[in-house]
Amino acid sequence: MAVYTEVTDEELDRFIGGYDVGRLLSFKGIAEGVENSNFLVHTDKASYILTLYEKRVNPDDLPYFLNLLGHLADKGLSCPTPVPSRDGMLLGTLAGRPAALVTFLEGMWVKRPRTDHCGELGKAMAELHLDGMGYEGFRKNALDVSGWRPLFDQCGARSDSVQPGLGAEISRELDYLEADWPSDLPVGVIHADLFPDNVFFLGDQLSGLIDFYFACNDAFAYDIAICLNAWCFELDGAFNVTKARALLKGYTSVRPLTSAEYAALPKLCRGAALRFLLTRLYDWLSVPEGALVTPKDPLEYLKKLRFHQTIDTAEAYGLER
Amino acid sequence: MAVYTEVTDEELDRFIGGYDVGRLLSFKGIAEGVENSNFLVHTDKASYILTLYEKRVNPDDLPYFLNLLGHLADKGLSCPTPVPSRDGMLLGTLAGRPAALVTFLEGMWVKRPRTDHCGELGKAMAELHLDGMGYEGFRKNALDVSGWRPLFDQCGARSDSVQPGLGAEISRELDYLEADWPSDLPVGVIHADLFPDNVFFLGDQLSGLIDFYFACNDAFAYDIAICLNAWCFELDGAFNVTKARALLKGYTSVRPLTSAEYAALPKLCRGAALRFLLTRLYDWLSVPEGALVTPKDPLEYLKKLRFHQTIDTAEAYGLER
Repeated sequence: MAVYTEVTDEELDRFIGGYDVGRLLSFKGIAEGVENSNFLVHTDKASYILTLYEKRVNPDDLPYFLNLLGHLADKGLSCPTPVPSRDGMLLGTLAGRPAALVTFLEGMWVKRPRTDHCGELGKAMAELHLDGMGYEGFRKNALDVSGWRPLFDQCGARSDSVQPGLGAEISRELDYLEADWPSDLPVGVIHADLFPDNVFFLGDQLSGLIDFYFACNDAFAYDIAICLNAWCFELDGAFNVTKARALLKGYTSVRPLTSAEYAALPKLCRGAALRFLLTRLYDWLSVPEGALVTPKDPLEYLKKLRFHQTIDTAEAYGLER
Repeated sequence: MAVYTEVTDEELDRFIGGYDVGRLLSFKGIAEGVENSNFLVHTDKASYILTLYEKRVNPDDLPYFLNLLGHLADKGLSCPTPVPSRDGMLLGTLAGRPAALVTFLEGMWVKRPRTDHCGELGKAMAELHLDGMGYEGFRKNALDVSGWRPLFDQCGARSDSVQPGLGAEISRELDYLEADWPSDLPVGVIHADLFPDNVFFLGDQLSGLIDFYFACNDAFAYDIAICLNAWCFELDGAFNVTKARALLKGYTSVRPLTSAEYAALPKLCRGAALRFLLTRLYDWLSVPEGALVTPKDPLEYLKKLRFHQTIDTAEAYGLER
């Protein structure tokens, strides 16, 4: 559920009037996303998404995200494209919040991705990595290995209220990952949150990628690790190596992996699992009574982490380079 | 906030495949309405609204509503038009719930209606009343004068927890209205819930009426009374006679009022105020802890009721026939 901000008629008319998008025909709040308020806008020219950025997004990061979308769209990637205002600005203000208008991307996310969807995702992610080269913006990954311990410290002793022993288990994993986190892998723009709900399909064809509000500069292979976790586990917690192979095959058909990237996959998968375990744990412990949003289960990612701890080499997943 | 039901990919494909509406391009839950789950659907032909009817709607009433929309659209009224399935059915099943696909109506509701909006509303309401003639369906108004006391009985002594003395005040008003409720006024299909959020505008032009899920057969002038309450009071509780005059003038330019209808307006306005006071009171007292929906303030309608209690004749409002 994600409409946090009410917009008055006058504010909306003034805002839309600042863009060369034709006559406003409809404006409906969308019940999706948890970070921002999103509205589907029809004009007599086209459909658009109007996003109001709520508190969780750092306004200083917005130019990075919006310019990146413009850069990627110029390169031919299918993603929401920011519409410049008549003044040439990608970022405006509406109802006291930073706001942007982007093109509407047709397509639907797949609730239960199949193997062919994973292959398409791999290809699109590699294209994103290649298309991001040459983008001049830089944003450090706020949730990279250096950000995990501060997040864990904020959860503190309350971690064990979710599952006894969880705090100690996370602490050990942090020690392991911090000691020898890969630092020499190829880096560039990564999406960093390519979960199924951010990948649109029309039938079996991938129609575009959305929601770049975690995008940053980090190791390409870390983006792959995030996706292996998000797309290649079954509901019962089992790793589906067929899906993982399809994802990697799709990816490497566009951008081959270096041997260092390939070798780093088990560790990157552990790190990616810990990152989502930690943010979900933090959200779980922070959610106020009676909140509108149900937090996601952190323990789903503990299971994934434990699976990756049993894996020494990428070959041990059953993956081929 | 109104997406109560999750729909799987397979269910959605199967459902949309049952209609001749082209290829499904997008499907987004809408954060509006409180009774049902609504989704905005784009296909390569047009836009549609897909509604899943949740528990508050009696499934037995759905044919009345859907056939009415079809009837009104045939008569040229701008309202959502149900799309028949390939089997010729207006009502289907999706995710275990009754479901219907209707055409998407462009336009936006006006949060702060002005006088000209009230005039447009009056015209459209009269057109609805005329267009509804000849509709063969019949649905008793479940919230007419005979339905108010049972609703009040369910609130019982808890009414005074909202405001001391409220129970006695409602009881006195019920006695008054039940004793001499107008029963010989012209009747037909009324909308019965024409609040501003159910009336779409494009610029200053009314573009259509939506949300017919309280429609029923009752006195036309009672529909007017509901609208006088919903459109012609200012935020500070003051009755705006300029808006009321515009509403009536718009209405009578399409369908003149009989003298009995005109004379009955003060009492109908009291009844209409009590009806919304009672349903809001019931919702206020029934809302579970931590609910997603904030109930509307019942006391707004107590103020309106008290205002109408000071009025003896339609002339006393400052209205002209």
